[in-house]
Amino acid sequence: MALFPRLLHVIGNHSFLGPDIAVPQRHWEDFTPGSVFESEPRRVTREEIIEFAAAFDPQPMHLDEEAARASMLGSLAASGWHSCCLLMRMLSDGFLSETRFMGAPGIEEVRWLKPLRPGESIRARATVLEGRPSRSRPELGFVKFLFELVDSSGACLMTLTVSPMFARRAAADASRDRASG
Amino acid sequence: MALFPRLLHVIGNHSFLGPDIAVPQRHWEDFTPGSVFESEPRRVTREEIIEFAAAFDPQPMHLDEEAARASMLGSLAASGWHSCCLLMRMLSDGFLSETRFMGAPGIEEVRWLKPLRPGESIRARATVLEGRPSRSRPELGFVKFLFELVDSSGACLMTLTVSPMFARRAAADASRDRASG
Repeated sequence: MALFPRLLHVIGNHSFLGPDIAVPQRHWEDFTPGSVFESEPRRVTREEIIEFAAAFDPQPMHLDEEAARASMLGSLAASGWHSCCLLMRMLSDGFLSETRFMGAPGIEEVRWLKPLRPGESIRARATVLEGRPSRSRPELGFVKFLFELVDSSGACLMTLTVSPMFARRAAADASRDRASG
Repeated sequence: MALFPRLLHVIGNHSFLGPDIAVPQRHWEDFTPGSVFESEPRRVTREEIIEFAAAFDPQPMHLDEEAARASMLGSLAASGWHSCCLLMRMLSDGFLSETRFMGAPGIEEVRWLKPLRPGESIRARATVLEGRPSRSRPELGFVKFLFELVDSSGACLMTLTVSPMFARRAAADASRDRASG
């Protein structure tokens, strides 16, 4: 279990693209099954829930309190896509920005377990499940994660299973050897 | 195969919450396996790609042309989460707004097949795979869909498998009988 400093922006932080690494950055080899990373908490406002829904998921239950009361949600709650995007941002800032993250080929599963309500304070949690090297790209490896969105009471609102790619340390070392040799 | 008129906003359109249905709305029973729904095209700009990434997925490859060239993407491309959100919006406007859509418990799978580039014109396509009634909520049924994001050349950029819930017609009829009886 470890807490990572939250960065406000990683815009302009291209350090993971080059061999000169200013801060220690996790490669594929550094993800140990069972290890857990947790973000700082983040409070979600009614305004951002409605703004996101109006842009991307304009269902009445995500836009309007009265409509939400008449729906299965019982009261206004965030779009499940909004929860995914908040999770991605929180993990990007405090966690992926300190790794040699190379994106992901897709998402294995998302489960929305409880509604995300206005005013709730959420944290993102990443648990390493397993790693496997890429067969087609030896410079990369996949790390399978369980990502969770957790509320202030510790209840899990959403789980997301995904296997992003990270640069392998061995490949980075070989590349550095070639550059200096 | 059918085309649906694109609605600019469904904000304020609460018609699917009440028994008074102004426009014909699809219930669970109306989704036939194999039937296909397709959205109007929508052009995606560089500005919205960068804006979305800055908000939710601030990886250099989604924010900066130079960083993107050095990445696996080869040039600037949208966040995969942005593709998901665009798909949701396009299906909401022209398709789900004309159904008794009740949300989804999660996502079964997402696959990002090709990068979504600035200036591309995309369409959303929904293919009905199968339906099954809800065991715990007899007034609902699940419809399993293959959702696709397709570019102007017809290439599939993303697939998404999901089983949203829809109100069942039988339940709506019973409710109306009770109200009038």
